[in-house]
Amino acid sequence: MAKLSNAVRIGILGASGYTGAELLRLLARHPQAEIRLVTANAKAGKAVGEVFPHLAHLGLPKLVKVEDADYLGLDVVFCALPHGTTQDIIAKLPKHLKVVDLSADFRLHDVGVYAKWYGHEHKAPDLQKEAVYGITELARAAVQKARLVANPGCYPTAAQLPLVPLLEANAIEAGDIIIDAKSGVSGAGREAKEANLFAEVSEGVHPYGIASHRHAPEIEQGLSAAAGKAVVVNFTPHLMPMNRGIEETIYVRLHNGATADDLRETLAKRYAGEAFVRVVPKGAVPHTRHVRGSNHVLMGVFADRIPGRAIIVSVEDNLVKGASGQAIQNMNAMIGLPETTSLEQEPLFP
Amino acid sequence: MAKLSNAVRIGILGASGYTGAELLRLLARHPQAEIRLVTANAKAGKAVGEVFPHLAHLGLPKLVKVEDADYLGLDVVFCALPHGTTQDIIAKLPKHLKVVDLSADFRLHDVGVYAKWYGHEHKAPDLQKEAVYGITELARAAVQKARLVANPGCYPTAAQLPLVPLLEANAIEAGDIIIDAKSGVSGAGREAKEANLFAEVSEGVHPYGIASHRHAPEIEQGLSAAAGKAVVVNFTPHLMPMNRGIEETIYVRLHNGATADDLRETLAKRYAGEAFVRVVPKGAVPHTRHVRGSNHVLMGVFADRIPGRAIIVSVEDNLVKGASGQAIQNMNAMIGLPETTSLEQEPLFP
Amino acid sequence: MAKLSNAVRIGILGASGYTGAELLRLLARHPQAEIRLVTANAKAGKAVGEVFPHLAHLGLPKLVKVEDADYLGLDVVFCALPHGTTQDIIAKLPKHLKVVDLSADFRLHDVGVYAKWYGHEHKAPDLQKEAVYGITELARAAVQKARLVANPGCYPTAAQLPLVPLLEANAIEAGDIIIDAKSGVSGAGREAKEANLFAEVSEGVHPYGIASHRHAPEIEQGLSAAAGKAVVVNFTPHLMPMNRGIEETIYVRLHNGATADDLRETLAKRYAGEAFVRVVPKGAVPHTRHVRGSNHVLMGVFADRIPGRAIIVSVEDNLVKGASGQAIQNMNAMIGLPETTSLEQEPLFP
Amino acid sequence: MAKLSNAVRIGILGASGYTGAELLRLLARHPQAEIRLVTANAKAGKAVGEVFPHLAHLGLPKLVKVEDADYLGLDVVFCALPHGTTQDIIAKLPKHLKVVDLSADFRLHDVGVYAKWYGHEHKAPDLQKEAVYGITELARAAVQKARLVANPGCYPTAAQLPLVPLLEANAIEAGDIIIDAKSGVSGAGREAKEANLFAEVSEGVHPYGIASHRHAPEIEQGLSAAAGKAVVVNFTPHLMPMNRGIEETIYVRLHNGATADDLRETLAKRYAGEAFVRVVPKGAVPHTRHVRGSNHVLMGVFADRIPGRAIIVSVEDNLVKGASGQAIQNMNAMIGLPETTSLEQEPLFP
Repeated sequence: MAKLSNAVRIGILGASGYTGAELLRLLARHPQAEIRLVTANAKAGKAVGEVFPHLAHLGLPKLVKVEDADYLGLDVVFCALPHGTTQDIIAKLPKHLKVVDLSADFRLHDVGVYAKWYGHEHKAPDLQKEAVYGITELARAAVQKARLVANPGCYPTAAQLPLVPLLEANAIEAGDIIIDAKSGVSGAGREAKEANLFAEVSEGVHPYGIASHRHAPEIEQGLSAAAGKAVVVNFTPHLMPMNRGIEETIYVRLHNGATADDLRETLAKRYAGEAFVRVVPKGAVPHTRHVRGSNHVLMGVFADRIPGRAIIVSVEDNLVKGASGQAIQNMNAMIGLPETTSLEQEPLFP
Repeated sequence: MAKLSNAVRIGILGASGYTGAELLRLLARHPQAEIRLVTANAKAGKAVGEVFPHLAHLGLPKLVKVEDADYLGLDVVFCALPHGTTQDIIAKLPKHLKVVDLSADFRLHDVGVYAKWYGHEHKAPDLQKEAVYGITELARAAVQKARLVANPGCYPTAAQLPLVPLLEANAIEAGDIIIDAKSGVSGAGREAKEANLFAEVSEGVHPYGIASHRHAPEIEQGLSAAAGKAVVVNFTPHLMPMNRGIEETIYVRLHNGATADDLRETLAKRYAGEAFVRVVPKGAVPHTRHVRGSNHVLMGVFADRIPGRAIIVSVEDNLVKGASGQAIQNMNAMIGLPETTSLEQEPLFP
Repeated sequence: MAKLSNAVRIGILGASGYTGAELLRLLARHPQAEIRLVTANAKAGKAVGEVFPHLAHLGLPKLVKVEDADYLGLDVVFCALPHGTTQDIIAKLPKHLKVVDLSADFRLHDVGVYAKWYGHEHKAPDLQKEAVYGITELARAAVQKARLVANPGCYPTAAQLPLVPLLEANAIEAGDIIIDAKSGVSGAGREAKEANLFAEVSEGVHPYGIASHRHAPEIEQGLSAAAGKAVVVNFTPHLMPMNRGIEETIYVRLHNGATADDLRETLAKRYAGEAFVRVVPKGAVPHTRHVRGSNHVLMGVFADRIPGRAIIVSVEDNLVKGASGQAIQNMNAMIGLPETTSLEQEPLFP
Repeated sequence: MAKLSNAVRIGILGASGYTGAELLRLLARHPQAEIRLVTANAKAGKAVGEVFPHLAHLGLPKLVKVEDADYLGLDVVFCALPHGTTQDIIAKLPKHLKVVDLSADFRLHDVGVYAKWYGHEHKAPDLQKEAVYGITELARAAVQKARLVANPGCYPTAAQLPLVPLLEANAIEAGDIIIDAKSGVSGAGREAKEANLFAEVSEGVHPYGIASHRHAPEIEQGLSAAAGKAVVVNFTPHLMPMNRGIEETIYVRLHNGATADDLRETLAKRYAGEAFVRVVPKGAVPHTRHVRGSNHVLMGVFADRIPGRAIIVSVEDNLVKGASGQAIQNMNAMIGLPETTSLEQEPLFP
């Protein structure tokens, strides 16, 4: 695709994982962006096509080590490095760069909470103060002005998009939120681990990280801000035998006489103008396969048979709106482009 | 396998579906049972091996229409017919037969509740009074004396096994039980429906029957009896891209100062002598793949991060303990054989 | 997406199947096409979003019956109707329409061969003479001038793209071609059939249509033309537990002293200028997942251990280059647009 | 299960992989065998239930390092260690032990061929002379007298069972055998490798080891003996998105006027008395799912459309007849038990 001469020049750090592949796939067709740098330490020296044969035809630069990266000719950097290594690297980047960090390293405002859940002190607490937590639809103004955006986690995006407006509207109880989440395996990354082998994952399902998953404090941070008080949630993720997709079935207690229909209406109003977030009609049920490969989020609301309760169903593609798609949406917002640029692709079904 | 001359003579009505196949698979090696009759209306006249090539070598009788069945030489009949057609057929069976019905037709004690959820009047209300609802471990004495056992639904088995003892122990609140259930596709049966095509189910997940699934009243019937009062539950099933297995993540509120450890201990004591039900150690997580193809149920208990709540994880193979395995377990109990007979096979992993 | 005022006006007949969905997905972003008509008899009256929730946001027209279609305001019609019903319908279409037919009804030049393999006389033999068999890369000039293009079958596209140039170059023997093909389940269509249920297809593989599949004569038609003599092939398809993708491993005997390297070079030259067809480097192995969701075809050539033989590996997405993508590529060629228009999307991995 | 006091005492070396799990699953119910030793170096010190939760209830011994194994109280040892490490270990075992080796270390009679394909000299050439290559049905008499059985590879078992009798009958040409093989991922073992991650394998298919897979010489060894001359085959394996199962579609040229029906009859006669090998009726198609979890092999023969050729379809479960099931079948033969002991389980479908 012919790029404009004044294209935004992009670097991707940690490009050999699934979120890296997804950044490359989506940015390849971005009319105002040009990929100039791709790093991947273990696979440095290889062509992108050796690591991702589906992208072999794109004419991308060779993979280099992150320490050999030349940032001078770049405008924007995406960081898709493992958690824990990113704080050091971002702290040392030239300050002219805009940065979207897909790791968890800058997501928690409170460095004490970070230290508790990630097991070590935060290495760049000053940068943390500057970082904007970027669920684009919920933080648009701040993202537009940001230099460093902490791109949200996959689970937290699907949870906060429906729950933040409902807590802000005081329509649900903050102390009784149960998030039963199901994720495709790509969310676990491309590292070779026994637990993620095909034969360990297919033809079965199981919960993991019960009451101890690191996305719980990230969700609670956003919900606490929305509720105006400390919120603790139940968050129970499950590993699905599928590549992509997150579905969250969220069980809430209604507040102030609200009904399930009220919740649906509140969400529909909140997201009426949004390109990527849709509230499905009463009775329709979101499936992860309705959003596969796209930046879309679908949500539905249902009355519970237990009086005073409701059920929210929220789906996204964990690699797109849950990671790389939202990262590009944030970049678009940061540099003044329409947020949908290069994210217009329809979902792939079947 | 050589059968005893005094073998129990078995008929299977509706043998061409997945629960029928599973009855055939498991009974084929039963040392004291002999399959004498297999019916399947749409496939009458065919050999079992045409309908189930994996069982072609067993030398089973040809499939006949249910109206052509000869019951005289039989001792036990398994009914694996569609819901709604079974009441008539069972009502007309000779009374010397012991019957295990795998349909929903005799599961609800209250024929009014049946009519409400199944859309028509119960056609055999007198037989309903005689039917024993057979989660074997919870109704052993009654099953042993029963002539007609209503074999429980797949979801209700995995839900009631952990919840009934906890409600009986008054350790959890009866009014705040949320059952997030995930099932393999075989639970939807072998009928050709667009919604169950491979391309509609694979690579995705979605809830269905939200607040309206017929297994909700079945679960509530058992929990109400255990709690000594009417219980309404949240029951939200999800369709998984896998053949077999049910996982239920059950969210409960603790009662009377009970802790998650107390719940685990209560369950461990309750099922200490059971061959098929195991409570996993603290920290271990049941997967559906740990029970695939077996009659086992695994359950674990976890403390919630929300104070005063706990999480129960329960898994089974929906076609075995959730259907045909439990049916054979019930038959064994009804005729005085060890319950484990022909159900000793270990789970198949991977 | 804003459409040009002089957009090509499109009708899609039979839009409720998987190839229909794929036409809608790809055309939705076509900058010079506008979907004006969508038919689906069994689902007439429904919104597209009820049949394909992943496309609910596109603002497409309601589904109507094919007999209620108004063709006056249209420029191009895609026919994605079942085999056998299409000849009648296309014969009655207004002659100003350009037509791309995705069924098998106009693929076989010889109506006698058609009658033999499809079990009834051809109903529009005059139209058959006009129809252009449209593997775009192999019939570009004819497609550009065509009014009616017979869009090739999924298997025949992946087979002929490598084999036709090799036969034309006289580099392989025409009488010893064995095509072992593997296809995702979406190739079997969306009709509810027991054989395509999730539980019948997943976790297993099997051949079908052995020595009797209707794509054999279609392949042989193209290969015979290329070889200049009647060719009979072995074509053995297998059903894969996956949604999308066709892989063909083709076993050939070398001719005239050609080597595997020669074959690779012949193909690389033949497709050097093509946007969608790529010959992978020596040693690289095409996977179906390298082309998922895209219009790409990858092919590789390998020396056999049996002297004088070679192995060709060819992959495509059966719903894109194997059906709807090639249909759009053909339409683009027919109306003078760049062939890649609306087909630029990169493959989706994982 | 109660074991006899004179049970055969078993050791399993390398029990933490998938073939190890399968040995444990099948032997658990063996009425005349008792598992006394299980080794697994990386997981030594753990309970079997930590490594294989589905077997936690079996009361098996703890995993120990192979160098800490005590062989004195054992009668039989199964070796499921990685290729290359086994020759040393088996050479040092006490000579009273009967040994079934599931690795490739003793499968090739010619140590020169071994060295060429496995990259190092054979470390126990004298033991190699003693080893019996054990496709049980083809080498029964030798297996019954053997002390050391080299258990065949998964692919070679499914290939040789149909091809050896046909070559012995001189019914097919030895120089034109093409084996297109498809295997489930469990065949690749439990080691953590990127290539076997769920997201790399699901929703796609690809060939691998084209013209270079180590099972080719193993197949050729058996076929050469049957043909009475050196045979070179085409063997092209493909990785399937499924856990278990091997399907081989074998393309052969008929010899001496034989027809496809003749081949079927030859095979049917050859295997008429066998418990595990079945030739399906004309027209029936073997699926891998017809043998899942069982020790069965199904094979069918079909006429090709190319005159003078035929197609053979052969299926097995790669972990059972392709590995651990055949290993137990061999042990049964070696110690004089019925070969079917503990292998009677029917296939699991779906």
